[in-house]
Amino acid sequence: MAQLRIALAQVNPTVGDLDGNADLIVDWTRAAADAGAHLVAFPEMALTGYPVEDLALRPSFVAASRRALGDVARRLADAGMGGVPVVVGTLDRRDGGRRPLNAVAWLHGGDVLIASAKHHLPNYGVFDEYRIFESADTLPVVRLHGVDVATVICEDLWQDGGPVSVTRAAGAGLLLAVNASPYERDKDDVRLDLCAGRAREAGCTLAYVNMVGGQDELVFDGDSLIVGPDGSPIARAPQFVDHLLITDLDLPEASGDPGPASVDAPGGATFTVERRTLSSSPVPAYDPEPPTVAEPLDDLAEIYAALVVGTRDYARKNGFRSVVLGLSGGIDSALVATIASDAVGPENVHVVLLPSRYSSEGSVSDAEDLVKRQGVHSRIVPISGMVEAFEAELDLHGLAAENLQARIRANVWMGLSNEHGHLVLTGGNKSELATGYSTLYGDSAGGFAPIKDVFKTTVWDLARWRNTALAADLPFLHPFAQEPVPEAIIVKEPSAELRPGQRDRDSLPEYAVLDPVLADYVERDMGRDSLVAAGHDAGLVDRVVRLVDLAEYKRRQYPPGPKITPKNFGRDRRLPITNRWRERG
Amino acid sequence: MAQLRIALAQVNPTVGDLDGNADLIVDWTRAAADAGAHLVAFPEMALTGYPVEDLALRPSFVAASRRALGDVARRLADAGMGGVPVVVGTLDRRDGGRRPLNAVAWLHGGDVLIASAKHHLPNYGVFDEYRIFESADTLPVVRLHGVDVATVICEDLWQDGGPVSVTRAAGAGLLLAVNASPYERDKDDVRLDLCAGRAREAGCTLAYVNMVGGQDELVFDGDSLIVGPDGSPIARAPQFVDHLLITDLDLPEASGDPGPASVDAPGGATFTVERRTLSSSPVPAYDPEPPTVAEPLDDLAEIYAALVVGTRDYARKNGFRSVVLGLSGGIDSALVATIASDAVGPENVHVVLLPSRYSSEGSVSDAEDLVKRQGVHSRIVPISGMVEAFEAELDLHGLAAENLQARIRANVWMGLSNEHGHLVLTGGNKSELATGYSTLYGDSAGGFAPIKDVFKTTVWDLARWRNTALAADLPFLHPFAQEPVPEAIIVKEPSAELRPGQRDRDSLPEYAVLDPVLADYVERDMGRDSLVAAGHDAGLVDRVVRLVDLAEYKRRQYPPGPKITPKNFGRDRRLPITNRWRERG
Repeated sequence: MAQLRIALAQVNPTVGDLDGNADLIVDWTRAAADAGAHLVAFPEMALTGYPVEDLALRPSFVAASRRALGDVARRLADAGMGGVPVVVGTLDRRDGGRRPLNAVAWLHGGDVLIASAKHHLPNYGVFDEYRIFESADTLPVVRLHGVDVATVICEDLWQDGGPVSVTRAAGAGLLLAVNASPYERDKDDVRLDLCAGRAREAGCTLAYVNMVGGQDELVFDGDSLIVGPDGSPIARAPQFVDHLLITDLDLPEASGDPGPASVDAPGGATFTVERRTLSSSPVPAYDPEPPTVAEPLDDLAEIYAALVVGTRDYARKNGFRSVVLGLSGGIDSALVATIASDAVGPENVHVVLLPSRYSSEGSVSDAEDLVKRQGVHSRIVPISGMVEAFEAELDLHGLAAENLQARIRANVWMGLSNEHGHLVLTGGNKSELATGYSTLYGDSAGGFAPIKDVFKTTVWDLARWRNTALAADLPFLHPFAQEPVPEAIIVKEPSAELRPGQRDRDSLPEYAVLDPVLADYVERDMGRDSLVAAGHDAGLVDRVVRLVDLAEYKRRQYPPGPKITPKNFGRDRRLPITNRWRERG
Repeated sequence: MAQLRIALAQVNPTVGDLDGNADLIVDWTRAAADAGAHLVAFPEMALTGYPVEDLALRPSFVAASRRALGDVARRLADAGMGGVPVVVGTLDRRDGGRRPLNAVAWLHGGDVLIASAKHHLPNYGVFDEYRIFESADTLPVVRLHGVDVATVICEDLWQDGGPVSVTRAAGAGLLLAVNASPYERDKDDVRLDLCAGRAREAGCTLAYVNMVGGQDELVFDGDSLIVGPDGSPIARAPQFVDHLLITDLDLPEASGDPGPASVDAPGGATFTVERRTLSSSPVPAYDPEPPTVAEPLDDLAEIYAALVVGTRDYARKNGFRSVVLGLSGGIDSALVATIASDAVGPENVHVVLLPSRYSSEGSVSDAEDLVKRQGVHSRIVPISGMVEAFEAELDLHGLAAENLQARIRANVWMGLSNEHGHLVLTGGNKSELATGYSTLYGDSAGGFAPIKDVFKTTVWDLARWRNTALAADLPFLHPFAQEPVPEAIIVKEPSAELRPGQRDRDSLPEYAVLDPVLADYVERDMGRDSLVAAGHDAGLVDRVVRLVDLAEYKRRQYPPGPKITPKNFGRDRRLPITNRWRERG
């Protein structure tokens, strides 16, 4: 056996910020080298950020990424770290290739030693990779201190028949997988099971390094981990925080046999095994340090962490240091304010109370109670005068009159955003957005919607959880002195307060019965008959399906502000929202 | 040789409207049968509409499409048209397939005779087909009145190595291509050249039937055509109108040789040739009718037609019969009002004049002149009172104060939309949207933006063209009694009128120099160095690139109202905007 100390750098890069990401790689490699690591690994596309979407298709960005990779290799060597190999995900291009590559490179001795690229390109759900990348058929195997280390990228773990399927035949002693795998509820155990299965398939230890942090519409949870050849867990990083997971491994020493130059995979592809040798002899024996094995968060803590990290990084990566939101006295804006305080600090949160003639007494006083508990900035802007000025010129009724109030409120917070540079947070939850219980350009206006993917029943659960977590030692929580969400806000009857005596339940089914149907219809894409077969009441299903389809239809009738398309009458360029990269001379 | 009278049905289906599209197929088949056609062909996915996007991934929609196809076959037979084969694009699924198929079916005698599917799945630009479909490797060849007719689908014409490459070896006498090929500027000649080349490759006559009409963000221009085996044009349908292109063809009679059962394509795929025989003997000789050969529209007419058809179908397919827009007295809203009058009739166009303290005298009088010339409905809603009501509560300066006025105007037209059911049209052109000279939730608010893909210099060209086309006999123009756009509006200096003395050219380069750089940067995705190498002034390039990147960045900081995602923290379901299909019990 041969020992190796490997460092998995669970970092938070920013899409397009080649300079900042390069600094991240240099800084974390220094920390790993200081800790005596023999090998440092960064996530998929750590140098460019992920997802890069159609930015990958711009030749000048590909060229800039390739230059940046060479620069990082030289900087590491110049700083005396050339002897520690660094594995890093990046954007590359094959000579004569039509599209770029989602690549992983080994940096060593000031050079880019070897680069391979992803074979399986996911093109479902949030992924668009077949659109922007070419597929590759190589498995790199690098001999380091007598251990043959193979590398693969993310989806190549999830699909059969890719490079993982030839790793055993290639004789690897360690399989290193670099990933940008976004958070989903309950995904963590799926990942651990996947890694265990692939380690057994490859017949070797598997090290899995994942990205962390929010990027555009995605949140990466980290949860980097290492499993042994039998699939048993060895080490695990904490979720939702930057972390350098340093682990001492005992790995099989490579034999003298050079091994095959290519291997046929079960799916039909043939993989070229590209071999390099950095050092053939194992390191002198040393006493290993005990591994870190973090406990996964429980379900509500995990969701809350994702919301805080997503909000924090959306603001930061988009250049905002402060946020503004309307505080109605209801549970949704109360939870968003709390998430915002945890994300950017209460001193950077600005709330606006916008009472109208239909606002209840409690709305203002409950909101003021929250302001005091959290220490956020607040101001009151009554909207009655503005509503009356519109009414003097226009005769609006029913829904049109209700929407007007919501849009006037949005005008106020957008004005404060334009004047002071705050990011507008919007408070809609998934139950009301899915059913269309929301106003276009009104309460739905804003740059980021922290709870848009959280059903109303979970909104209440999260508010209660946050109050109970007051003294919890979790890195994504602000140390409030008292429970941040007033109980009165949690227990009150939900109302939009846009007409006298309005209650959500006059328009919608009770949330406790609505949410399970929404989960099956919107998240699991079940058809009407399947919903009924799954045990939901047929009348309720018909009502919910009608509400959701109509809301979806209306949402698409009024798409967002016009988009700029590359071709006449074409569709939006799929650029990442956060784009730190600029064309330069 | 054998004669065939074929009918290419250049129709305008609606995505998701299975019932309406089925009616369309039955009605147009009746017209073709009445005209003595031996074969009728409909565009790609005519039964479901195109693009269906992720709606294709919902199993209940695939099942409903398959049922609808069988129903159409039976309806045709019941109506006495079972003897006329109908070729129609539809959505299908292979047994055990993971994704559905972009299919083309032959209907005959009440049955679905044979179905094949697309091989090349485009996944670039506006296309997402690799995401939603499986690829197929069959070429159907149906013997009809002694002629072997092969069918392929759209992208299979554009890429090498697909079913077209084996059509000659399969011995087809007619290659029928069904398409949903969207309009782009200058695309028409590309298509004709493509068809000519593929006809020569296949060694037979090629008939190309395309969709027409607006759907979501795309406009299909029709332009169905037929070329001979040598690539020479035989027939061509007019652009941007529904049309039944009936053409008598002389085609080679199939030999007794059954031909190969499979053929290897140059790209490596092997295609199964699926053969059916409907009738082996040629029809008795008859006198052919002269073919229709429509002239393509010139460039400005073509663009204008696309704008009118796109606006008309967006409104109609989304259930709107009337539109509302703000009329500022400037050229952009004047052109949009004119397009709207052409699209839905002036009697269904409602304009609002929203003067502020910064509006010039001419703004109102020029707008009123346009109202009189076109006969649209108009009202004046001064916004000064509303602006003052906001100013009483908020202290906004500079851009924040300018944006407030734009957002108040948007509130007014959204209120009128909610109250009266009009579709809001928004007036931004591509030059100002690309450079960020626009207000989020303000002038950019609305359901459809007719000129979002038109640069400012082309806006002026189109307004002048429309005035000169007063007496032109074009089906997409309303018969105005006088020039619809007042000359004063065309010649005035562009201004947003959001502060005293404001002019576009204080913030932007002159449009005549700006637009060519924008075209190269936004539409051709050229990098900074390439732009300079192409001859643009370096200082101008740097200024424009900075403006566009900043605008793009800001647009993505504030994405549209929250989207509903299927998974937690996932991305929007890609459903078509227009969705007539509903889950039903």
